Amino acid sequence: MTNGIKDFGLTCGSLPSGMLNAITDVPGVRVGHVTLRDGDINTGVTAILPHGGNLFRSKVRAASEVVNGFGKTVGLVQLDELGTIETPVLLTNTLSVGTCATALIRQAIRQNPDIGRRTGTVNPLVAECNDGPLNDIQALAVSEAHALAAIEAAGEGPFEQGSVGAGTGMTCFGFKGGIGTASRRIVLDGHDYHLGALVLANFGRAGDLVLPDGRRPDARRPSEAESGSVIVVLATDVPLEHRQLRRVARRAGAGIGRVGAFWGHGSGDIAIAFSTADPIDHDERHGLVPIRVLNESRIDLLFQAAVDVTQEAVLNSMLTSPAFEGRAGARRLSLADCLQANI
Amino acid sequence: MTNGIKDFGLTCGSLPSGMLNAITDVPGVRVGHVTLRDGDINTGVTAILPHGGNLFRSKVRAASEVVNGFGKTVGLVQLDELGTIETPVLLTNTLSVGTCATALIRQAIRQNPDIGRRTGTVNPLVAECNDGPLNDIQALAVSEAHALAAIEAAGEGPFEQGSVGAGTGMTCFGFKGGIGTASRRIVLDGHDYHLGALVLANFGRAGDLVLPDGRRPDARRPSEAESGSVIVVLATDVPLEHRQLRRVARRAGAGIGRVGAFWGHGSGDIAIAFSTADPIDHDERHGLVPIRVLNESRIDLLFQAAVDVTQEAVLNSMLTSPAFEGRAGARRLSLADCLQANI
Amino acid sequence: MTNGIKDFGLTCGSLPSGMLNAITDVPGVRVGHVTLRDGDINTGVTAILPHGGNLFRSKVRAASEVVNGFGKTVGLVQLDELGTIETPVLLTNTLSVGTCATALIRQAIRQNPDIGRRTGTVNPLVAECNDGPLNDIQALAVSEAHALAAIEAAGEGPFEQGSVGAGTGMTCFGFKGGIGTASRRIVLDGHDYHLGALVLANFGRAGDLVLPDGRRPDARRPSEAESGSVIVVLATDVPLEHRQLRRVARRAGAGIGRVGAFWGHGSGDIAIAFSTADPIDHDERHGLVPIRVLNESRIDLLFQAAVDVTQEAVLNSMLTSPAFEGRAGARRLSLADCLQANI
Amino acid sequence: MTNGIKDFGLTCGSLPSGMLNAITDVPGVRVGHVTLRDGDINTGVTAILPHGGNLFRSKVRAASEVVNGFGKTVGLVQLDELGTIETPVLLTNTLSVGTCATALIRQAIRQNPDIGRRTGTVNPLVAECNDGPLNDIQALAVSEAHALAAIEAAGEGPFEQGSVGAGTGMTCFGFKGGIGTASRRIVLDGHDYHLGALVLANFGRAGDLVLPDGRRPDARRPSEAESGSVIVVLATDVPLEHRQLRRVARRAGAGIGRVGAFWGHGSGDIAIAFSTADPIDHDERHGLVPIRVLNESRIDLLFQAAVDVTQEAVLNSMLTSPAFEGRAGARRLSLADCLQANI
Repeated sequence: MTNGIKDFGLTCGSLPSGMLNAITDVPGVRVGHVTLRDGDINTGVTAILPHGGNLFRSKVRAASEVVNGFGKTVGLVQLDELGTIETPVLLTNTLSVGTCATALIRQAIRQNPDIGRRTGTVNPLVAECNDGPLNDIQALAVSEAHALAAIEAAGEGPFEQGSVGAGTGMTCFGFKGGIGTASRRIVLDGHDYHLGALVLANFGRAGDLVLPDGRRPDARRPSEAESGSVIVVLATDVPLEHRQLRRVARRAGAGIGRVGAFWGHGSGDIAIAFSTADPIDHDERHGLVPIRVLNESRIDLLFQAAVDVTQEAVLNSMLTSPAFEGRAGARRLSLADCLQANI
Repeated sequence: MTNGIKDFGLTCGSLPSGMLNAITDVPGVRVGHVTLRDGDINTGVTAILPHGGNLFRSKVRAASEVVNGFGKTVGLVQLDELGTIETPVLLTNTLSVGTCATALIRQAIRQNPDIGRRTGTVNPLVAECNDGPLNDIQALAVSEAHALAAIEAAGEGPFEQGSVGAGTGMTCFGFKGGIGTASRRIVLDGHDYHLGALVLANFGRAGDLVLPDGRRPDARRPSEAESGSVIVVLATDVPLEHRQLRRVARRAGAGIGRVGAFWGHGSGDIAIAFSTADPIDHDERHGLVPIRVLNESRIDLLFQAAVDVTQEAVLNSMLTSPAFEGRAGARRLSLADCLQANI
Repeated sequence: MTNGIKDFGLTCGSLPSGMLNAITDVPGVRVGHVTLRDGDINTGVTAILPHGGNLFRSKVRAASEVVNGFGKTVGLVQLDELGTIETPVLLTNTLSVGTCATALIRQAIRQNPDIGRRTGTVNPLVAECNDGPLNDIQALAVSEAHALAAIEAAGEGPFEQGSVGAGTGMTCFGFKGGIGTASRRIVLDGHDYHLGALVLANFGRAGDLVLPDGRRPDARRPSEAESGSVIVVLATDVPLEHRQLRRVARRAGAGIGRVGAFWGHGSGDIAIAFSTADPIDHDERHGLVPIRVLNESRIDLLFQAAVDVTQEAVLNSMLTSPAFEGRAGARRLSLADCLQANI
Repeated sequence: MTNGIKDFGLTCGSLPSGMLNAITDVPGVRVGHVTLRDGDINTGVTAILPHGGNLFRSKVRAASEVVNGFGKTVGLVQLDELGTIETPVLLTNTLSVGTCATALIRQAIRQNPDIGRRTGTVNPLVAECNDGPLNDIQALAVSEAHALAAIEAAGEGPFEQGSVGAGTGMTCFGFKGGIGTASRRIVLDGHDYHLGALVLANFGRAGDLVLPDGRRPDARRPSEAESGSVIVVLATDVPLEHRQLRRVARRAGAGIGRVGAFWGHGSGDIAIAFSTADPIDHDERHGLVPIRVLNESRIDLLFQAAVDVTQEAVLNSMLTSPAFEGRAGARRLSLADCLQANI
């Protein structure tokens, strides 16, 4: 398989990529997958860990943006009120959000026996796309054990993209979709920072895909109403307050639009952005806490990066996915095959 | 036990109550409970059904308001985007939302085998409060079967209030809390309509409670930071568009405030409002659909009713709960006992 | 001058345009301009009237979307709460919003002497872009009389685009920007409806512009941070409830993104959508009012149209503007000249 | 006249007041009034300055909450996007917001000649209530000069309450309303901080007023639909990020509710909160900026203070207003007279 758009001479924007061109260019961020492929079962779980420690004890600052809310993400109410993530972020199929939420709850209790006893409860964070066209989604095949296995599999460094983890049964603009990633390097006050995206790409009508060079590849499928979804997780080590993270998360919508989508009615298009800088101590004792925030007049750098990594991660999710045969013989072409055939 | 504030000569506002003074005064609305009481387990599930038919096929118009978002409600993203409820509304303890969501998904698939196959997915709606002080919440004692049993138990007419269903382990202003309800009758164009509330009341610091007559009952407990929550479900048969429902839902915050709360940091204070009028056909074939909406200049009637029923339902949740002994011998006084002792 | 993208063989999407390819394809909608060009003064006012009658007495349903809130639009708070527009929509330069608001107030009082006496007050609606680079914006050259003249000039049918009215001093992607329009025809239940856009385009960094065919024209100007703005007014005669109008308004962001913007920090990117169907009678006496709403499963038609007309109207704003010399000799190239030179 | 609730033995909550029991207990905050009383003209302007320096150059962190959006406040779009206030906050009557906005623009340009030339534009902030019942609001009697005079009159220390400045023509629960203030002292990490409110109180139906001791004073007027409004400005020197300020601003709604309002349809109930800590340098050159934020687990202190000062400031606005005769002989009783008569 290919490594994404660079193998095809495509570029998204002018900012430099990070070393891995992955969300894991942000120090501490870990990604893990569990893939379920067995007959009509083509689904899985992908875990994004903002850091490798106890997330309930050391929360990261976060915000979300609902581009189009035809989606079943769990955990956004509290994320937006408190501006924190306190569990791994799990991605899975639409009907498995309940199971994954319960898995996160049990894991948090194991690590923090005071939850619901001497301290508050925990807010699990689970996002989803509908893989029904390629997966027997009614089987609810994802178990709590699968969710935990994805978390345990999470590691720093490079990770697999395409038809893997939650991306296993995804469709994007009529091609095979799935998990994609990309990153950009940003310099502030002479230091290097990164902003990376991991997307679960399952959206877009066949025929609407636009490449950065203006080409419109043909997925050789009928153009149907969007009933997919796309989840965009943006990570950065740039210190940002909640309001700034919300502004950054919002730009995921522009990135999705650039690939050709109009944020279709039936698509749950949701972005979550977090910063690993200045995490929040659950047991903080001081009344006031020093943090750093971005000089707002520099935020265009992050906006540009957010749009570019979203666009590139979506393209990479397709370019790293081979052709696929799913439930009841349903097939999806590979965008990489399509582009290679045209050369 | 008592029947609520009327037994104590208290009134909330000037509008007349419905026949039952319950959310089930709204024609078609059904309520059911499953109560779990066994040693340290003091929890349960309460189901509110907007009507008795197939909710996925015939959705009701709805909106939500997050008064304070320290809460884990599942389903609000799609509810607010599409303005519909398409499953029963389940109330339970905080750590059981995943299990109840999965139960709703399985039930919807059983009733609608096209979900995730030939039509879209389903958006389960589950709200919660933390009953940790009186319940072994870490046990995750609520099962999918309990969730379904609450739905099956749901009926029209009068229903039990107080320490029942999801209300079993609740604490409110230091007193025993739980499930409460109230309703108001509204006349429009010469016809009778109703607006009713069902609350899951688990909020408020001991010492902050204010009765409608200005009294401040003493729960004889230390005043601790709020870590409870309150869920307010408002139902009406007045035809309202989504924006109007959102405005009505918002007034639940004023009702909660009137009982003495300041919407504490640790309390997930969330309202959901739905109208049973002009339901939405999942299989609608016409491009345009006639509905009725409220003349906005009459909406104060609904605002007033929403504040009054929220206030009264919270008071009723306490006044219908006997004194309680929960997990590890934790005790809560009954507000009814307290008021009767003072007479 | 040219008539927009069609003169250059460009197309935005696949839906058919209306007869005029203008916002005035929506029956009843009127547009008028007042242009101020005198030395360093290059500014003006553009008025959009949802209908030709008394807007305070017969309000239209509306919603807004703040894509990026670095903007000074007046009137959105009430527009979003009540879901109505009750005055003409005025567009002007940033520092003239106060003057235009006052002009709208005086006009409403003249037409409705009961305002602030026997009925409530009126909510003026004014949106703006910063034309400082080409206009002596500090001169506050727009008077109340200019605002009224724009309203009086408003008519049905075709109207001038480009450097006219509020568009006089606008810059877009380094080229001369201004007023642009476009429309699409939509068929529902066998009847024709329209959705049209009028944009005030003053956004985008030089070098970021992307044409629908993938070309990236060179404005021969340095790429500076966005400090412009874009206002997108969407009109339709399709009956939509407020929530649906908000969803449609939101798609303006995708249209702006498609032209190459990333919703820059310094750009006030704001959309307002209204429907002329089923207007709201200020003096309505019935408690319930029948309206029609769109079957939500058809809303993708409107989303697609909203993205396409936004994109095309922005391009038209540039393609209908000749090269321009403004304040202190500042020059802007014409995109039309640039494209013609390349042929 | 009286000094507010303390003269009547009333208290709002348990936190201690600041020295002045005024918003000016927050160091640096200044308040000024211009009052217009001449025949049927009973209106004015009140200016709140977060500090005495150049606000455009040194902006304060801020957030807003629209409790009920039947209001014409100018400036909230940018305030909420950027989280800053960069001009004085002006309060006036509903139809004078345009004039006051223009006055703020001209003042900012005088102080900062680079506005709209070498730097961006300025975001004026003006809030309003409808004083039509007591003032000839159609006369638009407030001029730009009046707005500037209110700013110039602004000083630290104690200031006049009641029927003064923007409060001149206000009505509250059928009594004479106007400007009110209150403050609370908060200790964090061993240091004293303050949170203060200034309200423009013009809301509430006659008969709905509730005193902290449960009494319901009779304004001897018919109970009419709310068509007033209330503006709550909250100031603090506690360092808060935007999200925290928004949470604090939201609590104004609970304070308004506690006085007896249900956030009536026709009332524009809007809160603005700002912190004077860690102001934002318009010309900041560093990429990252150190600030302090509140440990979220202490935020209940601020929530409680926000509710209490809102409630008390509203009561003070009435208790410091003598009986009043306004336009066309319209009269309002004084709440102070009413309470004194009952003693």
